[in-house]
Amino acid sequence: MEKFSLQPIGYIRSSLKTLEDCPLQESEGAPEAVIEIDAAFAEGIQGLRVGAPLVLLTWFHLADRRVLKCYPRRETTAPEIGVFTTRSPDRPNPVGLHRVKVIEVLPGKLKVHPLEALDGTPVIDIKPDISPR
Amino acid sequence: MEKFSLQPIGYIRSSLKTLEDCPLQESEGAPEAVIEIDAAFAEGIQGLRVGAPLVLLTWFHLADRRVLKCYPRRETTAPEIGVFTTRSPDRPNPVGLHRVKVIEVLPGKLKVHPLEALDGTPVIDIKPDISPR
Repeated sequence: MEKFSLQPIGYIRSSLKTLEDCPLQESEGAPEAVIEIDAAFAEGIQGLRVGAPLVLLTWFHLADRRVLKCYPRRETTAPEIGVFTTRSPDRPNPVGLHRVKVIEVLPGKLKVHPLEALDGTPVIDIKPDISPR
Repeated sequence: MEKFSLQPIGYIRSSLKTLEDCPLQESEGAPEAVIEIDAAFAEGIQGLRVGAPLVLLTWFHLADRRVLKCYPRRETTAPEIGVFTTRSPDRPNPVGLHRVKVIEVLPGKLKVHPLEALDGTPVIDIKPDISPR
């Protein structure tokens, strides 16, 4: 089967150190976090400004990639549903999407808010968020 | 350097056969398309309904992954900007994001609209779209 290779462009630095620290959605009170951009990719953030709405793509490095069905929002009494109808991090290609705003631009780093991703989570892409807020 | 491996969960079938057929954004008039889910992952779409708003993650298989700076929206007279301030498909990890709605659910297939992705584009994830429209 065809495969593709991803390389992290950077890593998340966050006060969220364990899965138990993480809210289920950003809207439930996630902290700010810093994205440390790998030096090889630092040119790519040139022009990013405070206030810019972004979509971060992360790699859920702790995910169970065998999962195809799961319980909605950890409600284990409900029937299981297809994983592609959920935002579960446990999925075949565990890419996370996070809508954040830039709150500070530092050399090789971006401070963003709000972000429910664990400290050490790899970042695979950053895009401008063009959807309504 | 750390690397991760992605496997396609399916492929796009579309009337868009070449890059010249593609609008710059979905909002500029993209067609409907069919996602053919690989049999190994078909269980994952169980429960998806007509009308569901989705975010599709695709792999821009024709992308130039060395690009860190580019021209905004092909305006080659403007100064170059960091690729992470743009939606250019040419980027280090060429993952595409597409906001679509399900218009038909078929065995192992989803018909969605609108989608500006080339015929044959690999699909790497499907998530419910929880952002405002």
